[in-house]
Amino acid sequence: MFSLGSNLRKVIPALGVGAVMAFTAGNAAADDGFYDQYADRFEPLPALPPIPADNSLTKEKIELGKMLFFEPRISSSGVISCATCHNPALGWADRIPRAVGHEGQVGERNTPTVLNSGFLESQFWDGREPDLEGQALGPIEDDIEMAMDLDDALDRLEAFDEYQDAFSAAYPGEDAPITADNVAKALATFQRTLNTPNSPFDRYLRGDLDALTDKQKRGMAAFVDNGCIACHRGPALTDSQFHSIQVPGSTDKGRYLITGDEADKYAFRTPTLRNVAVTYPYFNNGGVETLEEATQVMGREMLNREFDDETVAELVAFMESMTGEMPDFQVPALP
Amino acid sequence: MFSLGSNLRKVIPALGVGAVMAFTAGNAAADDGFYDQYADRFEPLPALPPIPADNSLTKEKIELGKMLFFEPRISSSGVISCATCHNPALGWADRIPRAVGHEGQVGERNTPTVLNSGFLESQFWDGREPDLEGQALGPIEDDIEMAMDLDDALDRLEAFDEYQDAFSAAYPGEDAPITADNVAKALATFQRTLNTPNSPFDRYLRGDLDALTDKQKRGMAAFVDNGCIACHRGPALTDSQFHSIQVPGSTDKGRYLITGDEADKYAFRTPTLRNVAVTYPYFNNGGVETLEEATQVMGREMLNREFDDETVAELVAFMESMTGEMPDFQVPALP
Repeated sequence: MFSLGSNLRKVIPALGVGAVMAFTAGNAAADDGFYDQYADRFEPLPALPPIPADNSLTKEKIELGKMLFFEPRISSSGVISCATCHNPALGWADRIPRAVGHEGQVGERNTPTVLNSGFLESQFWDGREPDLEGQALGPIEDDIEMAMDLDDALDRLEAFDEYQDAFSAAYPGEDAPITADNVAKALATFQRTLNTPNSPFDRYLRGDLDALTDKQKRGMAAFVDNGCIACHRGPALTDSQFHSIQVPGSTDKGRYLITGDEADKYAFRTPTLRNVAVTYPYFNNGGVETLEEATQVMGREMLNREFDDETVAELVAFMESMTGEMPDFQVPALP
Repeated sequence: MFSLGSNLRKVIPALGVGAVMAFTAGNAAADDGFYDQYADRFEPLPALPPIPADNSLTKEKIELGKMLFFEPRISSSGVISCATCHNPALGWADRIPRAVGHEGQVGERNTPTVLNSGFLESQFWDGREPDLEGQALGPIEDDIEMAMDLDDALDRLEAFDEYQDAFSAAYPGEDAPITADNVAKALATFQRTLNTPNSPFDRYLRGDLDALTDKQKRGMAAFVDNGCIACHRGPALTDSQFHSIQVPGSTDKGRYLITGDEADKYAFRTPTLRNVAVTYPYFNNGGVETLEEATQVMGREMLNREFDDETVAELVAFMESMTGEMPDFQVPALP
């Protein structure tokens, strides 16, 4: 009954990131015709992403980062915060095709969710920043997003005793802790807590064979067998690599605009599939509304395949199993 | 030691709205030199405001109303919800002088908090709507707020199975419950739950003589003795009446624009003082940043008095005691 792989997993109980631990209790011992063949191609989501050595995860930094994330007064209009586009009510994204920012200006790209973004190896659609610290200040300063001068933003924060206290608590020992770097570090720290563990997909990988429906399991098999997994792999279901793609309605040159390298023309970082069912619309321009259509586009564009309707339905059902538990948080009371 | 008033309050333990219940335990039996003279001029905040006979408060309507309150897709841009200006992180208001709405347009007036708004006898600065049901749809349709055609908003809601279910649950027995009226009723119902009980001021009124500092008690005395209480009275500390006032920088004709009545020129409804310390800036145009300055302006404009610095500090300390417990809520997960 047991493949070598399954037995190996049972004697290596916890290898941390990347290890698949099979439960020995319950029905995990019985193969469902899929688990032994497919489960070890995937990785469940760890509780936390990697934490950089120079930005430790502390309670005080999380709290400060949460305040800053919901703080509209670091935008020039005073009404746009990170949470405006990364809206917790909307899968921490905005569910419109392209982001709307300062004075109603519409950007070129779809807002990516911040959920599980700490698991990505680069940030922004074009990967122009290596980490969340590098990403955090971009939208504050961008003319069509929050349109704020960073020094003015720091001045506004400085004016509140509560922010002086919160920065001092988050960065003990620093004489003047209200700096752009520390804003970025706090925002990155808060975002590293916005993870969505325990999706049906994760519970299945951990050995609960009832966590997926048969249709979802067939979708999992199709996902592997058709090669989707070549790029959508690892805990966040992305290889963090850049691939050229032209989706309906997009002329965006993507990573080429950063590197000037012909090979990067129309290339974007593989998006995470975690919570993909609740982070519509899809692609760099948000040009596709449904997961069904997005799946067909990906089949054609990346795999040169025309999925039949049944396969699309199974793949979509499988991706729906990747919706995890949303972060438990309270909106902070700002000063 | 005991006035007749205090004894009467002790033998009438709970009269509901408007009744002041004195604790018999602890130090309530001892007069602090203020309680007997001043406490019965005020009313603690009841747990809930009056509920209209034709819009009962149900769990299902609260849940639906909460979804709608956080729903940006009932704005034409898809990014402005009620919670954009009535931001729970900012005292359910916006803490900027005048509201910023569709495409960055700036309105004429300061955003009032929705906290305790169910206790008001009319809505909007000019009182043009009698209740929250009447108020709810205004900002959705207003060209400079959410700028949305109401029928289009209903169409967008109709497109979601989750809203069809939520409306059916909130309005059982109705064949086509997704109507403008029902949107208004649900929003009003949710807002009636956004109350801030148990402020130090309320705890004091209920007999906890230590809930206010001595400075705050002197402020309470000044508030009564100087006549602030003439207009700022009742559970929400407003008479819900209209008074002419011209605050710095404002040329807004107020209620006159609604009634055409000369007597209403520059008249606005007395704002609530509940949570006034966290709902700055002040007045119809948000033209005054601090509670100290607002207090001085009110002394001059409404009472023809020049408060000395000590009195201002005491009045401000007293008003700071009116900050209650913020509503406990979770941001809804929208479809």
